[in-house]
Amino acid sequence: MAEKPKKPQKLKARLPRGLEDRGPAAINATRQMVETIRAVYERYGFEPVETPAFEYTDALGKFLPDQDRPNEGVFSFQDDDEQWISLRYDLTAPLARYVAENFDALPKPYRSYRAGYVYRNEKPGPGRFRQFMQFDADTVGSASPAADAEMCMMAADTMEALGIPRGSYVVKVNNRKVLDGALESVGLGGEENSVRRLTVLRAIDKLDKFSVTEVLKLLTVGRWDGGEEGKGDFTKGAGLDDVNASRLLEFVAPAEPTENPSRDILFTMPRKWDELAVNPRFKEGGQELLEIKNLCEDAGYNRDRIRIDQTIVRGLEYYTGPVYEVELTLETRDEKGRPVRFGSVGGGGRYDGLVSRFRGEPVPATGFSIGVSRLQAALTMLGKLDTKPAFGPVVVTVFGGEIADYQKMVATLRNANIRAELYLGNPKHSIGQQMKYADRRNAPCAIVQGSDERANGKIQIKDLILGAGLTEIKDREEYLKKQAEAQYEVDQGKLVDAVREVLARHDVKWG
Amino acid sequence: MAEKPKKPQKLKARLPRGLEDRGPAAINATRQMVETIRAVYERYGFEPVETPAFEYTDALGKFLPDQDRPNEGVFSFQDDDEQWISLRYDLTAPLARYVAENFDALPKPYRSYRAGYVYRNEKPGPGRFRQFMQFDADTVGSASPAADAEMCMMAADTMEALGIPRGSYVVKVNNRKVLDGALESVGLGGEENSVRRLTVLRAIDKLDKFSVTEVLKLLTVGRWDGGEEGKGDFTKGAGLDDVNASRLLEFVAPAEPTENPSRDILFTMPRKWDELAVNPRFKEGGQELLEIKNLCEDAGYNRDRIRIDQTIVRGLEYYTGPVYEVELTLETRDEKGRPVRFGSVGGGGRYDGLVSRFRGEPVPATGFSIGVSRLQAALTMLGKLDTKPAFGPVVVTVFGGEIADYQKMVATLRNANIRAELYLGNPKHSIGQQMKYADRRNAPCAIVQGSDERANGKIQIKDLILGAGLTEIKDREEYLKKQAEAQYEVDQGKLVDAVREVLARHDVKWG
Repeated sequence: MAEKPKKPQKLKARLPRGLEDRGPAAINATRQMVETIRAVYERYGFEPVETPAFEYTDALGKFLPDQDRPNEGVFSFQDDDEQWISLRYDLTAPLARYVAENFDALPKPYRSYRAGYVYRNEKPGPGRFRQFMQFDADTVGSASPAADAEMCMMAADTMEALGIPRGSYVVKVNNRKVLDGALESVGLGGEENSVRRLTVLRAIDKLDKFSVTEVLKLLTVGRWDGGEEGKGDFTKGAGLDDVNASRLLEFVAPAEPTENPSRDILFTMPRKWDELAVNPRFKEGGQELLEIKNLCEDAGYNRDRIRIDQTIVRGLEYYTGPVYEVELTLETRDEKGRPVRFGSVGGGGRYDGLVSRFRGEPVPATGFSIGVSRLQAALTMLGKLDTKPAFGPVVVTVFGGEIADYQKMVATLRNANIRAELYLGNPKHSIGQQMKYADRRNAPCAIVQGSDERANGKIQIKDLILGAGLTEIKDREEYLKKQAEAQYEVDQGKLVDAVREVLARHDVKWG
Repeated sequence: MAEKPKKPQKLKARLPRGLEDRGPAAINATRQMVETIRAVYERYGFEPVETPAFEYTDALGKFLPDQDRPNEGVFSFQDDDEQWISLRYDLTAPLARYVAENFDALPKPYRSYRAGYVYRNEKPGPGRFRQFMQFDADTVGSASPAADAEMCMMAADTMEALGIPRGSYVVKVNNRKVLDGALESVGLGGEENSVRRLTVLRAIDKLDKFSVTEVLKLLTVGRWDGGEEGKGDFTKGAGLDDVNASRLLEFVAPAEPTENPSRDILFTMPRKWDELAVNPRFKEGGQELLEIKNLCEDAGYNRDRIRIDQTIVRGLEYYTGPVYEVELTLETRDEKGRPVRFGSVGGGGRYDGLVSRFRGEPVPATGFSIGVSRLQAALTMLGKLDTKPAFGPVVVTVFGGEIADYQKMVATLRNANIRAELYLGNPKHSIGQQMKYADRRNAPCAIVQGSDERANGKIQIKDLILGAGLTEIKDREEYLKKQAEAQYEVDQGKLVDAVREVLARHDVKWG
């Protein structure tokens, strides 16, 4: 009973913060990207599998970086039976649940991929949304560094398939064991230091935002937000002494990154740092990194595409071995002409403990995740995605006759596989108003049939693309000639042919 | 620090009820369907737009059918600022919010489409999930019955594009105003009867589950669940007298549905029901239905595809005028050989009040929604979707040599655009174990290189499809001949050519 609304007050149409609506250009761009990525993943032998948007909270676990408050980071609610449910915050945790649940039915190793939206209850910012798309690939059931190497190669191939030239991206590989070894070497090993270790990892992860000096404060005595003592909030430090903190920083943020592979700091550093040189976890991690590096190089993926970089941390807590990150190295300029470095557009690593949580037996696994939304922003800025609006449909205007007759023309066009629509606004609107609508729809042409044309079995074809160019023509004769080309009468029976001619004239192709 | 799990107790890997994981066959089927539907909608001039998975609860409103308890039907949670947020329960309510928010920037009428998951916090059952996909199209800003007619024609075209033959589906059209008129004619008009009216609508909506006799009870004195007085739960009746209840039932559930269009009960009924014949809302609704029917028939969509049916109710509360429903009329048999009628796979209607809630001015709108998940189940059962598993990748086995050398073969195949993978299980697994894996992956062929082959620069090609047929061959000579075809040595340099030959032999095409 619509004529008696119960709530006369007007509702405000708005989205919760950190969410966005997506129009045709963005949707088409995503479809192009997803299809391209999918083709690469399938060439690598991965098969699709999808899980729902939410899961039991305990099945997802809590592995988000930088979340101090409980229940921060995820959206949660209680089911009818009081059990807690959360929207997935990534695609890895649900996959671990899926593999554990279907373990015996799946081939091992099990290679799979999936694209989907994930949800983070975080503070939104520019380019930082609370719903965004990821595209993941995972190999479960292989402990071999060859599985990690494959992920890195696939990441590199994906970037090139998406149109990012070699040299404009790099896959950086590190190993959590290497970091763990370095932490042990500064006295932060063992369960009793787990909190301090987390403080250190978070400080290191801030190197892309803060200067080395500021991170040094976080590693030692703590840091005041406002820049000096007493100003702003205080973040407690990890309590390292200056020597150890400096060593750690020299390791994860070397003053001069070298491009010479034989001087990888991972291999040069132990020469001046005895504790590190003999640390077993460091050695184990370094050995795995060497294997990955050699496998990649033997398959033709050299240092310009995949390289070891001991500064990569990756925020998620579930990583246990190799971690990798894809960075776009080129700079571009934003709308205001300011330089923008794209940075990380994807990453992943080995998470040997995630499936084991359910199985009670070791299940090695490694995975890679592309931030589709973020990469799409980069590709759009680089002009690698076709985001210019496609042509709209042919618009059949309504001008005095029976709606049914105009509707028939539309059906004729559609049956000939031509995108077409009937003007469905107020049928008393003038042809001028209807033409304005057709322009707004980006229609390549419009069809008009007034009473005169109807009486003679004719229709008028209006080429709106040619028509738009008319205003620029100064010469009268030229104008009249072009005008005749842009608007002319044909037999109604020639409707499809005439429209096809206009479409061909302007090379109109619909997605 | 994976080696020291903090929680030694084993988690149970399980999904909340009413949710499902989806494998390759289902995912590929959905992709085929979505692409087909998209092509039809675009031919009709609709453009894509997408909204996020959740919205402010008040922006979505509460229009779900059959929900007596508050907050039933939707999944809701509070944001940090205490505002309530809900997962979308359909794609129409979010679109209304989107249009209201972007009203001035959009062309009017605004035709748009979107596919996406929606979430219902309802009791799940067979084929009834709490997350399922819908594919919607909407026209906002046109009050013309031509907009409704277009939806019905598009629904019919979509069914045929999906492979459902003419005669096996029907689009049934009704009008809420017709129902309202009938309700007014039995004395249920006006605001004061809104609760009784809802009781009647719910009773009518049960006609697909209950017999007419049972629905009659719901319309009059009420109904006992257990079949007789005092047994089971009691549902209160709408309190109509027998004459009025019977008239209503004769109208919405005629004893003999007639196939003769001139005998549409909508037009014959008023002859014997005076109050109905003069009811203004009934006449207005009937007039709109006639217009839709004529527009469809003039465009070539006859009664076998689109027809008036006064029994259609549609559960959602926001409909205000024409409502329509697509039904699959064919029967099929389930896995146990029992006959299954598919019934409704989509529907929609006019919701003139939904955008107005935000705008404070009338904004007419009509939309159509396909239940993708439900339609997919039907199409799969009908064999209209290709759900047989595609071939897996070519598997390169690991047999004594360096992993890097096998990895190189895989890279060579992938670079030639052949799906391929390295065996990443334990490299000490026997060739037999690795072949079992290749079979499980449905690989068309496998590559083996032992030490002898390696020394001579050779590889072995194993055609697994031919190999699988060997066991059936009884004749020794034939067996040896086929065996030689199924497994043979080639120069390592011929890897790509040899694999291509096997793929061509079996017509292997990957999606």
